[in-house]
Amino acid sequence: MFMGASTKQGYDIAHKSREIVRSLIGDKIDHLTSDEKAIVERIVHSTADPEYAELTIMSEDFVSKSIKSLKKGEDILTDINMVRAGINNYSGEVNCFISHPDVIKNSKDKQITRAAAAMQYAAENEFQGIVVIGNAPTALYEVIDLFNKDLMNIKSVIGVPVGFVGAADSKEDLNNSEIPHLITKGPKGGTPVAVATINALINFINKKSNKYV
Amino acid sequence: MFMGASTKQGYDIAHKSREIVRSLIGDKIDHLTSDEKAIVERIVHSTADPEYAELTIMSEDFVSKSIKSLKKGEDILTDINMVRAGINNYSGEVNCFISHPDVIKNSKDKQITRAAAAMQYAAENEFQGIVVIGNAPTALYEVIDLFNKDLMNIKSVIGVPVGFVGAADSKEDLNNSEIPHLITKGPKGGTPVAVATINALINFINKKSNKYV
Repeated sequence: MFMGASTKQGYDIAHKSREIVRSLIGDKIDHLTSDEKAIVERIVHSTADPEYAELTIMSEDFVSKSIKSLKKGEDILTDINMVRAGINNYSGEVNCFISHPDVIKNSKDKQITRAAAAMQYAAENEFQGIVVIGNAPTALYEVIDLFNKDLMNIKSVIGVPVGFVGAADSKEDLNNSEIPHLITKGPKGGTPVAVATINALINFINKKSNKYV
Repeated sequence: MFMGASTKQGYDIAHKSREIVRSLIGDKIDHLTSDEKAIVERIVHSTADPEYAELTIMSEDFVSKSIKSLKKGEDILTDINMVRAGINNYSGEVNCFISHPDVIKNSKDKQITRAAAAMQYAAENEFQGIVVIGNAPTALYEVIDLFNKDLMNIKSVIGVPVGFVGAADSKEDLNNSEIPHLITKGPKGGTPVAVATINALINFINKKSNKYV
């Protein structure tokens, strides 16, 4: 599995794309480790937007803590179903609780977003692993709060909510936190960025068993 | 349901976002109808990328043909599961066949992508309605070919595959076809653009029954 390709034709497309990506952003990611480069390349491949080479920021411990969690088969928790639907080839659980009846009820009772209520629900139900937020700033604020209160067993957070309201500030808060993280600066981000990042990490741990590497 | 909001907090965020979006792109979409404007605004809201105001192109009949199909409750067919997962509040069927056993087999036998094989599968299984392609240029080429050969009952195509290889050309082909369509020029596009477009259309037909309009 190379950048999501599962057939020869898909592989050829992905391979050519990687060459183009490298020609576009190679000089902007020179300072990164090879694993970090692979993540940023996959984000730019998935979005066709070279700007992400400059917008993407990882804490120094992001890759190592994430790989450690994935190798243990710990949980992946997503804010919305679109993100969950894009995650491939992981042997552990990939959960999204936004449509869970308890979450919908709590969201109404507390007048908070369903995405935020879903983070609380996970924290209360033995979540342990990586949180992937591709859409909702409110979910990201909630996760940072739960981590700071020692109420959620978080190994790393991919925090790339998108939007003109709240997204940039929520990512800035994550960037200033003690949580191992990846963010995108400013309003941009979104589900493809979230999915590219977690799939790149999963690919690192699956590498040996896959054909197209 | 306003731009995907389902709580008061979500509504407030969406409302403020729309004001920002209008201040950023208002002058660039002046030539569009009000429905077309609403679609482009939702795309920019979903991606936080004002560039889409200039990249998005619709055929003159795109909105009317799409609404007609949705009002009849016809099918929505997506190229990948991520797109399907993002589509909300539609009373008809929303299908994605990329993981169907027949599609996986045909993909291997013919050495074509699974996304392309999934379009053939739909055409052979009484599909009638709107095709939404957020990822795979190969699926879009297949759909144009099936339409031209009169082998697929397509009412409109949202064709916004993303990537540096094949995506721009496939969208150009769609733009030059007789199919009612929405595209994004160049390599950019993707699942959030696809989902924003179809959800905006669904919102048009659901408007009367929703709270936040």
